[in-house]
Amino acid sequence: MTRTADDIRAEIAALEAELATLPKTPVVAPLAVPFPDLPEIEGVRFAAGSAGVKYKNRTDVMIAELAEGSVVAGTFTRSATRSAPVRDCQAKMSDSTAPALIVVNSGNSNAFTGGKGERSVAEICAAASAATGIDAARIFTASTGVIGEPLPHDRITAILGDLAGELAPGNAEAAARAIMTTDTFPKGAVAKAGDVTIAGFAKGSGMIAPDMATMLVYIFTDAKIAQPLLQKLVSEICDRSFNAITVDSDTSTSDTLLVAATNRTGAEVTEGAALAAFGKALEEVMLNLAHQVVRDGEGATKFVAVNVTGAASDADARTIALAIANSPLVKTAIAGEDPNWGRVVMAVGKSGAEADRDRLTIHFGDVLVAENGEVSPDYREEQGAEYMKGEELDITVDLGLGAGRYTAWTCDLTHGYITINADYRS
Amino acid sequence: MTRTADDIRAEIAALEAELATLPKTPVVAPLAVPFPDLPEIEGVRFAAGSAGVKYKNRTDVMIAELAEGSVVAGTFTRSATRSAPVRDCQAKMSDSTAPALIVVNSGNSNAFTGGKGERSVAEICAAASAATGIDAARIFTASTGVIGEPLPHDRITAILGDLAGELAPGNAEAAARAIMTTDTFPKGAVAKAGDVTIAGFAKGSGMIAPDMATMLVYIFTDAKIAQPLLQKLVSEICDRSFNAITVDSDTSTSDTLLVAATNRTGAEVTEGAALAAFGKALEEVMLNLAHQVVRDGEGATKFVAVNVTGAASDADARTIALAIANSPLVKTAIAGEDPNWGRVVMAVGKSGAEADRDRLTIHFGDVLVAENGEVSPDYREEQGAEYMKGEELDITVDLGLGAGRYTAWTCDLTHGYITINADYRS
Repeated sequence: MTRTADDIRAEIAALEAELATLPKTPVVAPLAVPFPDLPEIEGVRFAAGSAGVKYKNRTDVMIAELAEGSVVAGTFTRSATRSAPVRDCQAKMSDSTAPALIVVNSGNSNAFTGGKGERSVAEICAAASAATGIDAARIFTASTGVIGEPLPHDRITAILGDLAGELAPGNAEAAARAIMTTDTFPKGAVAKAGDVTIAGFAKGSGMIAPDMATMLVYIFTDAKIAQPLLQKLVSEICDRSFNAITVDSDTSTSDTLLVAATNRTGAEVTEGAALAAFGKALEEVMLNLAHQVVRDGEGATKFVAVNVTGAASDADARTIALAIANSPLVKTAIAGEDPNWGRVVMAVGKSGAEADRDRLTIHFGDVLVAENGEVSPDYREEQGAEYMKGEELDITVDLGLGAGRYTAWTCDLTHGYITINADYRS
Repeated sequence: MTRTADDIRAEIAALEAELATLPKTPVVAPLAVPFPDLPEIEGVRFAAGSAGVKYKNRTDVMIAELAEGSVVAGTFTRSATRSAPVRDCQAKMSDSTAPALIVVNSGNSNAFTGGKGERSVAEICAAASAATGIDAARIFTASTGVIGEPLPHDRITAILGDLAGELAPGNAEAAARAIMTTDTFPKGAVAKAGDVTIAGFAKGSGMIAPDMATMLVYIFTDAKIAQPLLQKLVSEICDRSFNAITVDSDTSTSDTLLVAATNRTGAEVTEGAALAAFGKALEEVMLNLAHQVVRDGEGATKFVAVNVTGAASDADARTIALAIANSPLVKTAIAGEDPNWGRVVMAVGKSGAEADRDRLTIHFGDVLVAENGEVSPDYREEQGAEYMKGEELDITVDLGLGAGRYTAWTCDLTHGYITINADYRS
């Protein structure tokens, strides 16, 4: 007797129920990349420890100490419901070169926790100041994890003294691991500009949408650079790196990017070739980390660059690129390896940006799919289908209207995303 | 020996592969409602037939004939890549009372089909005119289905003569069935305003986002009403019905809502109580059909009303309601029956509308979850978890800022959505 589709569905449901009773084993994303060998940065020391904020048997607090002479630049979520630590960091941005400390916990975001949230930040800053001697006005905290539950900050403050004693320049990877939440791998990147080294790490996997840093990112360099210039560079590069990625169009309440320069190496970066080289290396690190966040996108199996060219303006190009990159129908088609360029056309159309059906050209990789308002006469479905089997995909849309261009990065939308997010908190 | 999680996953994968080899059996959405007994509307006749545009063994073309004296109002997708039939309908909107014909096919949307698409519309209008004697300028077509493939319009024109011979007032349900695509049930609604009857039907299940009618909807009434007034009513009500629903934030290239009044019954509707009663009945039908589209949302298992009150303006309330209703993280939490109000806060924050964390109040049904910028002291997680088990849910967010309000309707985001859309075209 053959089983019917319903029989099979019932068997699958029974197996899924059984699976739900088993302890969850960490599975590393198929698009994961190895953590690089992060060089030590003069003037920066790290420590990581286990406070038991929420997770058991893993580290969940990291601190990073910046020596006298360091400057800190940052960008933050624009969310109207951003967290207490984000508000506190924003208030502390300045051109000070006094010693500084970064304190980050995972397991609880301390967002939408009312006055309690602000008190938790103050308690952590006070305890960290006592443990390290660093002025509380130079202590930058961040919290990542579930929203809306009061942060058990006493568990964090209880271990800060021990962490201060363990600070060492080589602990960057341990620090990167301590701030992971639904991440399946730690994310690090490094680049050089002459003698100057730039190294950093990031966490982020879901609630990733491009209206700010959209995750926690910490980047360190030994470069000599004034804080206002560093801030300008960071803000500019952020727009085409962290603000150009999306996993699920949802913007976190906690997104924080801090870039610290310890002012130890070479001549001061002010202008000309030195500034260009430093900016290029910084962008390399920021883009690398941004791409790793997409590669660890919840449930992701494909890494997709969406290139928009020929738009009426760069702003229009960005609007269209993000409409494509955020479209659930485009993202599920990619998951199904379906070269469904009709859904790309749909996303261009819904974006609200200027578009003329008859001037659109669409490529999947090098495959010309559509031009002059319809499918290309030379296009064969097998070409598109073959291309879509790849793990790294390029979708390029030329509007034929002007010189505006933008690239966004996204991942596919799979059963994995549903599984992770329909059962994250409980 | 106990099976490991990986063993179980492998078994599930094998069963899913087996399932994929079986012929797909239509599964009706769990939130489906029965098709109502649609009354005949004087002056309107329907016919449905099988042209084999794409599907086999089912109807895929419907025509609706409107007698002399009828007026037609409509709203359409605002997509910049809207389809050839949509552009043609828009050009034909007028206050004419000449006989009219609606011709709709499923299986192919005739969108992004270049000059071929416009020729297909012209061919269908010419053939329909020959078959019925109705002026081509009064023939309104629509096409729904895959985007970007040339429409085999000869298959449609070949059956229009037969369909014209089969026109009958009682064929509305057959017409509603012929225009289904990924719909799992046909959608109909009826309301009375005194002697006047309003009856209509809709199709829509995916690519549903609130920037216009977002599906195909045909509504008929025997009311006496001038076309400009009918158009004004339809546009207004559309903003709080079809434009207030979302399944996946993706806006179709083909959305069309036509409302035809055959001018047969009662005194002319112009103002006062008669206008109010007619508008109320029309809104009842439009809301009912809009809700049915959400109930048949791809993969939907929960029907969710998102009420926003106390916003700085109605426009802000709409922005916030749709940010919540479109959030993948909110929608997956609903799928998992997780009272994850933190994700609601996140969506409020990312919306860009004015919000003050400390004035937000959130209810799930009657359960007060959060107030004054944090979780309510009386809230217990079990209350929220119990409420989320329901099939019809209300999420209410009060901003505490002003009198702006809006309600949007959405569904949950489940594995079913991924299954349907990762394998729709192939």
